[in-house]
Parts: sequence; structure tokens; C-alpha cells
Amino acid sequence: MKDLLIELDSRMKMPLYEQICRFIKEEIRTGKIAPGEKLPSSRALAAQLSVSRSTVDLAYGQLTSEGYLDSVPWKGYFAGNVRELYQLGDLKRIQTQERQEQRPAFLWDFALNGIDEESFPVNIWRKISREVLLEENSGLFQLGEPQGEQSLREVIADYLHHARGVQCRPEQIVMGAGNDYLLMLLSVLLKTDTVIAMENPTYRSAFQCFRNLGCPTAAIPLDGAGMDVEKLSASQADAAYVMPSHQFPMGTVMPISRRMELLRWAGEREGRYLIEDDYDSEFRYRGKPIPALQGYDTKGCVIYLGTFSKAIAPGIRVSYMVLPESLLSVYRQKGAAFSATISRIDQRMLEIFLREGHFERHLNRMRSVYRAKHDLLIRCLREMSDILELYGENAGLHVRVRFKNGMTEEEALRRAAGEKIRVYGLGEYVIEQDASVDRHTVLLGYGPLKSEEIQAACRKLKKAWM
Amino acid sequence: MKDLLIELDSRMKMPLYEQICRFIKEEIRTGKIAPGEKLPSSRALAAQLSVSRSTVDLAYGQLTSEGYLDSVPWKGYFAGNVRELYQLGDLKRIQTQERQEQRPAFLWDFALNGIDEESFPVNIWRKISREVLLEENSGLFQLGEPQGEQSLREVIADYLHHARGVQCRPEQIVMGAGNDYLLMLLSVLLKTDTVIAMENPTYRSAFQCFRNLGCPTAAIPLDGAGMDVEKLSASQADAAYVMPSHQFPMGTVMPISRRMELLRWAGEREGRYLIEDDYDSEFRYRGKPIPALQGYDTKGCVIYLGTFSKAIAPGIRVSYMVLPESLLSVYRQKGAAFSATISRIDQRMLEIFLREGHFERHLNRMRSVYRAKHDLLIRCLREMSDILELYGENAGLHVRVRFKNGMTEEEALRRAAGEKIRVYGLGEYVIEQDASVDRHTVLLGYGPLKSEEIQAACRKLKKAWM
Repeated sequence: MKDLLIELDSRMKMPLYEQICRFIKEEIRTGKIAPGEKLPSSRALAAQLSVSRSTVDLAYGQLTSEGYLDSVPWKGYFAGNVRELYQLGDLKRIQTQERQEQRPAFLWDFALNGIDEESFPVNIWRKISREVLLEENSGLFQLGEPQGEQSLREVIADYLHHARGVQCRPEQIVMGAGNDYLLMLLSVLLKTDTVIAMENPTYRSAFQCFRNLGCPTAAIPLDGAGMDVEKLSASQADAAYVMPSHQFPMGTVMPISRRMELLRWAGEREGRYLIEDDYDSEFRYRGKPIPALQGYDTKGCVIYLGTFSKAIAPGIRVSYMVLPESLLSVYRQKGAAFSATISRIDQRMLEIFLREGHFERHLNRMRSVYRAKHDLLIRCLREMSDILELYGENAGLHVRVRFKNGMTEEEALRRAAGEKIRVYGLGEYVIEQDASVDRHTVLLGYGPLKSEEIQAACRKLKKAWM
Repeated sequence: MKDLLIELDSRMKMPLYEQICRFIKEEIRTGKIAPGEKLPSSRALAAQLSVSRSTVDLAYGQLTSEGYLDSVPWKGYFAGNVRELYQLGDLKRIQTQERQEQRPAFLWDFALNGIDEESFPVNIWRKISREVLLEENSGLFQLGEPQGEQSLREVIADYLHHARGVQCRPEQIVMGAGNDYLLMLLSVLLKTDTVIAMENPTYRSAFQCFRNLGCPTAAIPLDGAGMDVEKLSASQADAAYVMPSHQFPMGTVMPISRRMELLRWAGEREGRYLIEDDYDSEFRYRGKPIPALQGYDTKGCVIYLGTFSKAIAPGIRVSYMVLPESLLSVYRQKGAAFSATISRIDQRMLEIFLREGHFERHLNRMRSVYRAKHDLLIRCLREMSDILELYGENAGLHVRVRFKNGMTEEEALRRAAGEKIRVYGLGEYVIEQDASVDRHTVLLGYGPLKSEEIQAACRKLKKAWM
């Protein structure tokens, strides 16, 4: 380690720390400072240059973040290996590079969380956005209601009433930027240490949210009808997170009888809640849609979670929850302290999209789009009916496939990947290993895939699996 | 309090709770139940009508939210003042009205959280929104990165570096829909029961968020330079929430010396953090802006919070935090489970707004707009210099005024309200009463007011106060 012969010019417009940066970069570039060589301590260099130590720290910090220096705790700063920096250009590109490498190259991906983006009525959306931004002193840029705008909550309440049989006043609706946020907010409203029962397997992201929020959870097995209420009663849980319309990932539609058992369980004790996640109930291709659990709730123990992520697009980040009166008062005391999480412009756009019937039309269009894909996928999979059984069809945006020939999920995924096709294993959604969990099941989402892609992908799956 | 002679008809299609609502509304309308009169407890009424208690609770809840009843904790339900209600008709109007009534009719409001909406370049915003929605298969409707889009975090990192001296890689930035959400997320990342020291007085909404999240807080008095570090060291706190650039509400700009003391405190122990809320640092009208505390942090103990609520608009709900490496790894384990909270379309729009220099131009324009308002307000207030002193000027969007003539904050607010002018008392922001807190101070925000309004309002204040 040698002294750095930096000449600082305090009359220059360039700040001192930047002059130091420039000099050291140059030294490293030209190899005058070799890769791995230790630099003077910030204290020493500050003294040598008679500048404040924070100036040198600023320079070293900058150089480190740009990758010219490596900072080794308790040891000091060392010249980084610049050759890499040179081949790959700047740090940013290195990182983007890394991120892309993480995703293996699949030809087609039966992703479970995607939507058919092409069918989104982007022209109408653009038109509405223009209208909204032309509204005179709309106040849309000022801070809005924590709960979301009343006018939006009104149209949502109407929609939920006629489309899902949900009984609520707009005052019970809390808008939020996605379900994860609403679960966060919910964890603030529920009594601390409320044990939340979850179906096993379940929607993993909800499970992870609860766990990271420090909410204790209990995994409850599923039978053909849904969450096993006996096991639920035997558990410590005072809340149960369920998906009665179309359980994820199993695709089970919960029969009325089981819904009533759950409501009875919740009614048994003060402060018990059912968290009904109705994430994809808009999509049902055969048979009448069953009204939401919330509609049958006479004791105010259902928390209804809805989202526009499937019905419109996950990218817009709009979800909502319907709180029972008991929690509404808690929300007013504790929850309302958290400002709204959805742009008022987006709220206004969504309101118009619903009010003017665009949403209704969009849903009808999407139902036929997804139904066509669904039917096609089912047809293709039936060609493999010697080796697999189908479940959870006629609703939602994914189907479940079980191998009769004993092929394991791992094997099925491996073989599919061999053909560059991505399918998903049930195992990913198992939150607690138990006997009830099946090891021969994979999941296929068809939201984003085109018909011809579904056909081609299934041909390859047939090749891989049969 | 008398019995209610309600006749319920279980054969009617109308639910029982609604029949109860109807009856009680009628009784209140016709004055049979007088304003302020106590109603039977839900238990008693349920028994009397032999319906379930939850039915009565539902009815009472409904009537309360419609304003027919007032619910007084531990006391019960009382008939509201219907004369108002009557003139106003239906639910919605009542609620909007109530919302407005919470803000009594002021001529001018020196609101502390508003912005100058008129100066927002809505045409550019509209143009960008159109461009973004015209982008072909942009993927903007699919779910994005939990942290926010890389490309947006890159421009923000650049901006923070040159404008605020913040040293960070885009990977350290976490985007979120408003500061409250980011504080929620932060509470997930920090060790449970981390005591958070807060300046007293402080930004009340942050205090309420921490409290509702169950984070223990410690109120630390301020001296002329900012948070009292001796008292901080004596406290149980392992994190300190500070606003060095322009303390809210005091307006103090923290001198370097105090910043260094804080950094030293944080560096003393592993896992200590400074939460730097840089909410309005873009607006400084005289003197050089002081770089953010984060820029001087060599030990990775500063969490930097920034927002576009002041610099662009609160309605768009975009904030971000810069995590030190130590917390970044925690974020990747726990925080990344929570999906993004900002629409990708909005993120893309903001990215273009920054990248194409619109933000820079907007800030420059706003600086002169606000500076003019600031100078005007100061001039007007100086006319009252016999009775008041000015503090916290030359930065941010509000000034602080202290009465030398012993006038209390309450008196000053009362007198101002008499002239239909709204100013704000320091007391609102006091989180713990102690000797250091002054009772003769009011706050005036000038963001949303027009020049002529500021002048007119100040004339009235002079009349009220002198």
C-alpha cells in the first residue's frame, strides 16, 4: 500500500470527494493500483489530504458501490478486479445479467399466476386515463381516504352484491395495493398471536406473508370438500384462511354443507374469523357460480378478500377486503392511520371502468377466452387419460393433473423440463408434510398461453410423460 | 330510555336488522326518540324482540354509520342530532357532509400536508401515460418485482446520488405505495420489539403507524440542533426516526455535528439503525442543501426514506426506502415475499418523468413557486413581529410561529378560527408531554394556498392575533 498522490483543488466546482473518486478510478483503470491492493484507511488519506474523513468516506463509499473498491469489514478497502467491470461495462448491466441467468430457458411455461395480457382492453384503459387526467381540479393529486375513495367503494359494493352475493356497505370495504398488503393490514387488526388455520396445500404467498408477519399458522388437511373442520376445531386456530370458490392449488369448489360447517365453527366463539380469499371466482365455465361465503354470514365473522389481479391484471395492484362490523371498528381505531396505497388516479380510472360497464364486458370476453383455452387444454390432457386424471376443471385459470401410473411430481417436472416445458409441482404449495399430501400431482396454468402454444406444449408433454 | 315497540315480521323479505333500522330511523325522524336519548342495549333489545344479539348489533352498526346513532364506548348508543341528517337526505351525502363537517367551514386553511396542485405538469403526465399505454407487449400488466422495477430504481439511485448525496445501488432501493406502507414493511424487517426513538414533537402519522404496528417507541426531546443524543443514548432505543433536512414540525435543519453524533450512536452497537425521513428536502430556498445523513454513513446503519408526495403529489402514492446491506439480506429473506404495491404502469410513467428530465424541471419550477409563497408568507408574518417569532423558514412547505406575548396555541387557533382561518397547533405533534414542549407555537403550511390567499389570510390573522 502506497500513498495516493492526489492533488485536490478546492477552487474547482467539482466536490472534493468526487475529485478523489476520479483520481482513484484512474489509478485503478491504468493499473497503478493493482487488483486486491489495499488502499490507505479513510482516516490516513483524510489526514494526508487534510480533508474531513467523511469526504474520503464519501469517495470510498461511492467507489465501492461502483465496484472499483471492495470493502472488507474491519480490514479496509481493496482495489476491485476491474477487468470484469470492463468486459461487462457498469455494475447495473452485471446485475441485470445475473437476474436473467437465474431463469432457465423454457419454451412454454404453464405459469399459475399469469393472465392473458393481449385481451386487456388497453384502448379503453387509455381513453379513461386520458379522461381522468383531463378532469379539472379533481383533487386527484391530493391525498385521498385511507380506505380508498368512497365512490369506488360504492361501485365495488354493487358489483360484489350482484356478482358474488356479498352483503356489504361501501363503508366496510378497504382498498389496498394487492392482497399481500391487505394481509399485512389484517395482521394489524387481528388480535396478536391469533393462530391462522390454512388449508394444506394452500396459496404459498399468503402463507409466507403470515409467517413473515409473525402470525402463527396451523396447517389443516383438505378432504374432497375442503378444509377438514374437525381438525380445524381441534386446532388452536381462531381464524381460517380459505378459498371456497376454487381452492388454490387443488381447484376444489367447497360445497354449501362445508361452508355452513365453517360458518358454524366461526360462530362458536366471539372473535373467530373466516378469511375468504375469492381470488379467481370471476372465472367459472360451467354450472352456476356459488355465492361467496360472506353472503351466508349472519354473525359478522367473514373477512372477504377480493382482487382485480385476475379479473383485470396483476400489474395494476388493486385488491380490497370487506370487513365485518366488529373489525371495522378496529380498523377505524388502528387501520385508518395507514394512508391509502392506491393512486387516486388509478382508483378513479377503475371506478369509471366498472361504472360504465367496461368491466362487465371485459369479464364476459375473458370468460370465453379462458373457457376456450381451458377446454382445449382439457382435450389435450385427456389424450393422456391412460396415465393421468384431471381435477379442479371448469373454474379458475389452472388445472390439476394426477398421475395414475405412479410417476412422481419430481419426475414429471424433470421430464417436462427436458422438453423445455415448465409445469408446477403440488409440493411447492404444501406448507406441512403429512400423509394426506399427494406426491403424484402437477399444476398447469393456462392464462397467458395462446391456443397454439397450449397444443404444442401438450404434444411435448405427451412425448415426455407417455 | 324507553322500550322500542318494534313489530318484526319474519315472513317479510326485508332482513330483520333492516326492519329494526327502519323503525328506529322513523322514531328518530319523527322525534319519538329525542336527540341524545339513550337506546336500549343490544342485549336488552335482542331479548325484547327475541332476535339474536348480532342482528341488533348489525342494525345499531348500520344506524351509527348512517349518523342516526352515536356510539359511546362503555356507555351505549344515543340518538344523533337528526335535524342536520334530515336536510341532507341519503347515506352518501350524510357521510360526505360528515367528512366536511370534521373540517369546519374555513375560508383558508394553512394545511401542512398539501401541495400546489395547479403547478403539476398534468399535460406532460398525460402525454407520458399515453406513451406508456401504447408500448407494445410491455408486460406492464403482469406482476412485477416486489422491490419495484429495476429500471425505475436505477433512475432513482442516480437522482438520489446527485441531488441528495445518497450512496446506494439500485438493488438497495425498495419502492412502496407511501411511507406508511414502507414503515409497515420496515417493522417486518427490524428485530421484533426494537424500540424506536422518535423526536418529540414529530410527524404524528409515523408515530401512529409504529404504535399500531405494535413497535415500542421512545419520545426523545429536541434541542436547537435536533434529537438530544444524550437522552437517546440513555433510552432503550435501538433505532431512531429522524428528519435531519427539515424536522417536522419544528423545521430544524440538523447541523453536521449532530448528524455525526447520531451516526456515532448508531455505530456503537451492532443492529442499531437511523431511519432518515427526507420527506421534503427537495425544497430549500436559501443556502446549500445539506446532503442526506445516509451519504455520511460508513457503517451501513442508515435507512433512508424518500417520497414523491411533496415533490410530485401525495395522490400518486410513491415512496421508497434505501436499505443498508445488513437489512437488504433480511429484506430478501422476509420482505420480498410481499408483492409490489405500485402499479407497473405508474412506475414506468414515473421512470420516464425522471429519465427525460421532467422531474428536474418540475422541481426547479416548484422551488420558485414555493419560494415566492414562502417569502410572501414570511413578509406578512413579519408585520406581526411584535408578538411573534419565526422559525424553520427557508425550507420545506411550512413555517413555525411562536408567540412572544404569551398567547397559547389554543387561544391562537381559536382566534384564527374566529376569522375562519385554519392554522395548526404544535400540540397535535407532541407524542409525550414534557417540559421541553412549548405551548405558544402554531404551524402554517403554504403549499396549496395562492399568493393572494396567503395575503388575505394573513390580514385576518393580524386582526385575530394583534
